[in-house]
Amino acid sequence: MPLPDQPERALLPAGFMDVLPPHATCEAETVERLMQVFAAYGYDRVKPPLIEFEETMLAGSGAALTKATFRLMDPVSQRMLALRSDMTTQIARIAETRLGHRPRPLRLSYAGQVLRVRGTELRPERQFGQVGAELVGAPSRTADVEVIVMAAEALAAVGIGGLCVDLGAPSLVPAILAQRGLDAATAARLNDALDRKDAAAVTALAPAVGTATADLLVRLLAAAGPAQPALEKLTAAELPAAAASVRSDLIAVADGLAATGAELTLSVDPVEGRGFEYHSGVTFSLFASGAPGELGRGGRYLTGTGEEATGVSLFMDAVLKALPPPARLRRVLLPAGTLAADGRRLRSEGWVTVSALDRAAEPGAEARRLGCSHALIDGTVVVVAAEPHSLTP
Amino acid sequence: MPLPDQPERALLPAGFMDVLPPHATCEAETVERLMQVFAAYGYDRVKPPLIEFEETMLAGSGAALTKATFRLMDPVSQRMLALRSDMTTQIARIAETRLGHRPRPLRLSYAGQVLRVRGTELRPERQFGQVGAELVGAPSRTADVEVIVMAAEALAAVGIGGLCVDLGAPSLVPAILAQRGLDAATAARLNDALDRKDAAAVTALAPAVGTATADLLVRLLAAAGPAQPALEKLTAAELPAAAASVRSDLIAVADGLAATGAELTLSVDPVEGRGFEYHSGVTFSLFASGAPGELGRGGRYLTGTGEEATGVSLFMDAVLKALPPPARLRRVLLPAGTLAADGRRLRSEGWVTVSALDRAAEPGAEARRLGCSHALIDGTVVVVAAEPHSLTP
Repeated sequence: MPLPDQPERALLPAGFMDVLPPHATCEAETVERLMQVFAAYGYDRVKPPLIEFEETMLAGSGAALTKATFRLMDPVSQRMLALRSDMTTQIARIAETRLGHRPRPLRLSYAGQVLRVRGTELRPERQFGQVGAELVGAPSRTADVEVIVMAAEALAAVGIGGLCVDLGAPSLVPAILAQRGLDAATAARLNDALDRKDAAAVTALAPAVGTATADLLVRLLAAAGPAQPALEKLTAAELPAAAASVRSDLIAVADGLAATGAELTLSVDPVEGRGFEYHSGVTFSLFASGAPGELGRGGRYLTGTGEEATGVSLFMDAVLKALPPPARLRRVLLPAGTLAADGRRLRSEGWVTVSALDRAAEPGAEARRLGCSHALIDGTVVVVAAEPHSLTP
Repeated sequence: MPLPDQPERALLPAGFMDVLPPHATCEAETVERLMQVFAAYGYDRVKPPLIEFEETMLAGSGAALTKATFRLMDPVSQRMLALRSDMTTQIARIAETRLGHRPRPLRLSYAGQVLRVRGTELRPERQFGQVGAELVGAPSRTADVEVIVMAAEALAAVGIGGLCVDLGAPSLVPAILAQRGLDAATAARLNDALDRKDAAAVTALAPAVGTATADLLVRLLAAAGPAQPALEKLTAAELPAAAASVRSDLIAVADGLAATGAELTLSVDPVEGRGFEYHSGVTFSLFASGAPGELGRGGRYLTGTGEEATGVSLFMDAVLKALPPPARLRRVLLPAGTLAADGRRLRSEGWVTVSALDRAAEPGAEARRLGCSHALIDGTVVVVAAEPHSLTP
C-alpha cells in the first residue's frame, strides 16, 4: 500500500539496504556454513560488541579506520563511542586481554555487521557482513598456509570453487628502501608509481632512488602474475637481507599451499601494498574465477602486544554475489483446521508449512496465491503448481 | 598479556560485552535454530539495516522508542540517522512498502542486534539480539494462535521446554473506560493503581471513576492467574460491548492454544498493559519455568497502513540464560605434517581438528595444552585426556 502522506518513509540512507527474501536466508545460512568450517578447524567463535569506546576501537591498527568510522556521544559515560567499521582490531583486543591467558596459538573466529561512514566506488554499501578468523601467537609460516587453505575450504563449502589466491608481501618494498633514506616526497612519488604498476615512472625516479634500486623495483613489478614464473623471477633477484627474508616467507607459503593439494590458482604480486598497511608478512587476496570483486583478504601482522598473528576476513557482500542461486524450498499449504500433529510431521520431513488462516479459500488456489507448490488435501500432499510462484519481490 | 601503558584499553562501555567461547557459538546456533523453525512455518527472513533515517525509524509506533535510540549525523545525507533499538517497526515498514505487493497474509522473520542508549535494571545490556516473526494482514484469531505455538515450538527446539504463556488484552481496560470520560489526572492515577495491581487504590478512586466501573476493574484484577479460573471469572463479568469483544478474542486464543495440543502453561492477566502500548488485541509474554526473565513477547497490532498483524519477539539475552549448557565438541590434535586429506576426513566425520604448527611438541601434551581430548598419533585417533580442558576463559 502506498504511503501518500509519507512519501519518503521507505527510503533508506545511501549505502543501507533491506535484504529481502530469499536473500536474507541465503546470507545467514552462508555465514553459518563458513563459520562451521572455521569451527571444524578449531577456531572458537567470539562476538565483540557493535560499539566500543572510540579510543579503544581506533587504537593501534584501528587508527587507519578513523575516517571510516561513525562516532557518537555516550550519554551514560559522557565519552565518545565508535561504531565498528572492522572487526579484526576487536578480535586482536580480545586475544590480548580477555583471552590473553589462553594457550597459544589461539584460534578465533567471528561474524558480524560492520558500518562505514562512506561507501567507496567498489563497495558502495555502508553496512556489510564480515566473517573471519584469526590465528594469534603463531610465527610459523604453516599458520599462513592453514588460514588460506581453511578460507578456501569454507568458500568451497558454500559453493564457491575455482578460488584464486593472490599472494603479496607488502613489507618487501619497505625492506628494500629501508637503507636508502629517501626523502618523504620521493618516497611518496615512488609508492604512487609502484601502486600504479608504472615501470616507466619508477625508472624516471632512478636519479633520486638510485639506479640499482630502481632497476630492482622494475624487476619486481615484472614478477607479478601466476605464481610459478613470478616466484622464479623473484628468486633470481638480488635482495638485501631483510627483503630476502620476506621473499623466503612468500616462497614458503606458496610451497606450503601447493603441498596441501588444495585446488587453488596461485598468483603473486610482490609490490602491491594498498590496503595492507598494517601487515608485517605474507598477505593474500581471494578471488573467485568469474566473480568481479575481492571475496576476502588477510595476512600476517603483529598484535598490539607484539604477538605474531595471521588471519582472514571474508566480505559477505562480495561472497554473496559469487554464490550460486539458492535452492527453492518445498512449501505446502495446510488448510485451516489441519491437525497440529500433521503440521509437525510435515515440518519434520523437511516441508515448509504455510497455514491457511480461514476456511474460505479453495486449497489449490490458495496454495498458488501464497507461493506454495503443494497443498495438503484430504490428508495427502498434492502438487498444485508445476512451478512454484516466485518468492522474490 | 597485560597492557601496562593502556590500562583502560580492554574496558567496554557499560552495557556492552564481548561474548567469548563457547557462548558466542551457542548464541549463533540458537538464533539459527529458532529461525529454522520460523522458516519451516513459512516465515521468510528479511534483514533490515542497523541504521535508518531517524524520521523513518522513529515514525508511528517507533516514536515510543525515541529516548532509547542512539542518533547520529550522516555526513553523506546531512540528515539525522538512528541506530535501531527494536526491529519490529523495521519489519512493519518492509511489509508496508517493499513487500506491500506480496499476497496476504505475509509471514516474515528476522534476527539481528539492537542497541539501546540506556540499559534498564532488568536488562542492563545496551546491545542484545532480537529474533522474531510477524504475520501481517491476518485479522483471524487463528493467526495469534499460530504465532504463539510457533514461538513455543522454536524455544522447544533449542531446549527450552515447560513454556508459560501469559495472555493479555491491553485494550480491555481502555475499552471499559472509553465512555467514562475520565480527566487525565484520574486516568493516570487509575492506570498506576492497575499497574501495581492495587485493588484498594482502585476502590479508593470509585468516586471519580464510578462505583460500578471501579468494582468491575477490581474483579478484573482478581481475574489474573492460571487461564481456566481466570477466564471463568472474566466470562462472568458484565462488560460493555467493545470490551466484551476484546474478551471474546482472549478466550478464542486461549481455546485455540488448548486445541493445538501444544504443551503450554497458560495464564491470563486481563489488566496488564505495560510495554504493550501500541497493541490492539491479544498480547502475550513468554516465560520458561525456572528461568527468571521474560523470554519474549508479542501480540496483535495495526501496522502504519492499518493492516491487522500479530508477531513475536524473542530476547536473546534471556533465551540464552534459559538454555541448557552447550555440548562439548570432540577436538583432535593433528601433529605438524599431517596430510591435508587426513584432516579433511576427520572434519567430515564431525571432529574439530586443531593443527600443531611446529613439530617440536609431544602430541599428547600439546593436545592437552590446546584443549583437545584426542590426538592423531601414527594415523590413529587416541584419547589423550580423560576430560577435555575447559575452554571457557
